[in-house]
Amino acid sequence: MENIRVILWGLGAMGSGIGKYLMEKEGIEIVGAIELKDGIDLGEVLGTGKTGIICKSNAHEVLEIPADIVIIATSSFTREVFPHIEKSVKRGLNVICIAEEMAYPWAQEPELAEKMDRMARENSVTVLGTGINPGFVLDLLIITLTGACARVDKIKAARVNDLSPFGPTVMKGQGVGTSPEEFKKGVEEGSIVGHVGFPESIHMIADALGWELDEIEETREPIITNVYRETPHVKVEPGMVAGCKHIAFGKKAGKTLIALEHPQQIHPHMEGQETGDYVWIEGEPNINVANKPEVPGGIGTMAVTINMIPKVIEAKSGLLSMKDLPVPAAVMGDFRNLIKKQEG
Amino acid sequence: MENIRVILWGLGAMGSGIGKYLMEKEGIEIVGAIELKDGIDLGEVLGTGKTGIICKSNAHEVLEIPADIVIIATSSFTREVFPHIEKSVKRGLNVICIAEEMAYPWAQEPELAEKMDRMARENSVTVLGTGINPGFVLDLLIITLTGACARVDKIKAARVNDLSPFGPTVMKGQGVGTSPEEFKKGVEEGSIVGHVGFPESIHMIADALGWELDEIEETREPIITNVYRETPHVKVEPGMVAGCKHIAFGKKAGKTLIALEHPQQIHPHMEGQETGDYVWIEGEPNINVANKPEVPGGIGTMAVTINMIPKVIEAKSGLLSMKDLPVPAAVMGDFRNLIKKQEG
Repeated sequence: MENIRVILWGLGAMGSGIGKYLMEKEGIEIVGAIELKDGIDLGEVLGTGKTGIICKSNAHEVLEIPADIVIIATSSFTREVFPHIEKSVKRGLNVICIAEEMAYPWAQEPELAEKMDRMARENSVTVLGTGINPGFVLDLLIITLTGACARVDKIKAARVNDLSPFGPTVMKGQGVGTSPEEFKKGVEEGSIVGHVGFPESIHMIADALGWELDEIEETREPIITNVYRETPHVKVEPGMVAGCKHIAFGKKAGKTLIALEHPQQIHPHMEGQETGDYVWIEGEPNINVANKPEVPGGIGTMAVTINMIPKVIEAKSGLLSMKDLPVPAAVMGDFRNLIKKQEG
Repeated sequence: MENIRVILWGLGAMGSGIGKYLMEKEGIEIVGAIELKDGIDLGEVLGTGKTGIICKSNAHEVLEIPADIVIIATSSFTREVFPHIEKSVKRGLNVICIAEEMAYPWAQEPELAEKMDRMARENSVTVLGTGINPGFVLDLLIITLTGACARVDKIKAARVNDLSPFGPTVMKGQGVGTSPEEFKKGVEEGSIVGHVGFPESIHMIADALGWELDEIEETREPIITNVYRETPHVKVEPGMVAGCKHIAFGKKAGKTLIALEHPQQIHPHMEGQETGDYVWIEGEPNINVANKPEVPGGIGTMAVTINMIPKVIEAKSGLLSMKDLPVPAAVMGDFRNLIKKQEG
């Protein structure tokens, strides 16, 4: 059996990280890469040795290469990745996309979701959106844990992470370094966005459990620091904003059934906040899970993406979400064996 | 759309618990019950009101009732449930079985597994073994968590529970109340068994990740108490055995890749042992998950079983394991809606 053949579309931090990990795996190979930097060797982008794979900005040309799956890592939004997905699907290629909104595109782009599902079926391929969050921590993991419950009354979960390693774009999007007034204005104007993915996670959970929600509410509050915090990209004096506490509520008849929190800040430990992924389920039985420290966002997204490749290749055709597929598993052997076994 | 129709086969603690929870759910109903107590109303066994469903000891008769799925809760061992599964499958019925060995029958009964898979395909039905452990805590949950890892070097997990609520059969099987010498003899003779399910969990994890193991080793050590512990069924003096510390190792080339611990004892808190489900993954990244207290075994098994019903009905035909199906989710709405959605 031939290697599984992957085309990478987008070689930013995530796309190139996925590429690097893929090169260490057995039974799978990168056969093409779509990138703005036209004509350079993929190895130059990944920081590995020469690969002989030349990046091209012309997507159509790269999509002519015989392949099994395209990994799209170009944007956070369904509208922006839709044309890429369309091109790939029409070439008969399976797709994994890490755009946050694609983790559950029915949440915010139901018409595009319908379109992608139809296209995927017509071309007998599978399209999956995934990532560490949305896609895993605040949705798939929660859903899995409810599997041990005979009844669920309420779900609360939190992902507490540390933004310190990130660059200026992330700092800006979370309002790190702003004054409380600037933060408020930034949220109103939409320049401070907090986490992208809450409607996706909440819809995925609700649909998995069969809860019909009336509304999803989101709040974004400044995390005002009492101590001086600093990273290479930002200095935050006491009284200023160290991050964004973004919370989302899924409600039915005025009652909160799902509450997801994602406070994102630099150096949370400086005020005694322990990073981690937390899930509390009220029901029968109660569930009280903590993963400390949190699964790191970058590696986590790269890993989930790679680990879902065999599941996506084996899946029925259509647009699917993480709740519809077998759980991801770290692929430690030959990718081809896993697919063969599932064919059984 | 009609209700989903369930036949219960076996109405012990687990089977009748599943029955009770099912009666509270929407879009699903029990249509028959196979039980030694011939002729009594199912409600009498479940302790609910009259149901009009009469338990019958003649399986063939009950399996004539039009149904979608049979839930088999009669024994822990594949060999013992095999004839029940065979009868059900040949009647064109899907099966969920909570026999521990059925969580991954390829581990200890590969020939029967092969047979069941063939039968299920020939009759276009799905057979699944599940339960809280094996089936969820020390396998599916671990596999799911590795999904966030780009590399896994070693897996360690523990399920620390409290046997205090259980009756004399469980106490005997775990050696509670024996002397250290009696415990040793009991393990040698096979009367003290510890946990049933380690080979199943280890094989499921290894197959999910693509690890080829050379051997599985199991050890059973007495948990000798330093304090007096007592339940309605057993009294344990200091120096005597309060439970069984059962550990299993999955090894490759002499190196342990998977270590699963399941110390089962009465009143673990009396010596400062906190009950819980714990998963530690060494890899990239490391994962460190704790669920405190542990998911209770009884409700957990009932819940997972019920929650897998829509997944099993929707699945491709054959013998499957939890790693092959979408994750369980607590079914809080109408069972029929969940199946309809998956049909999409």
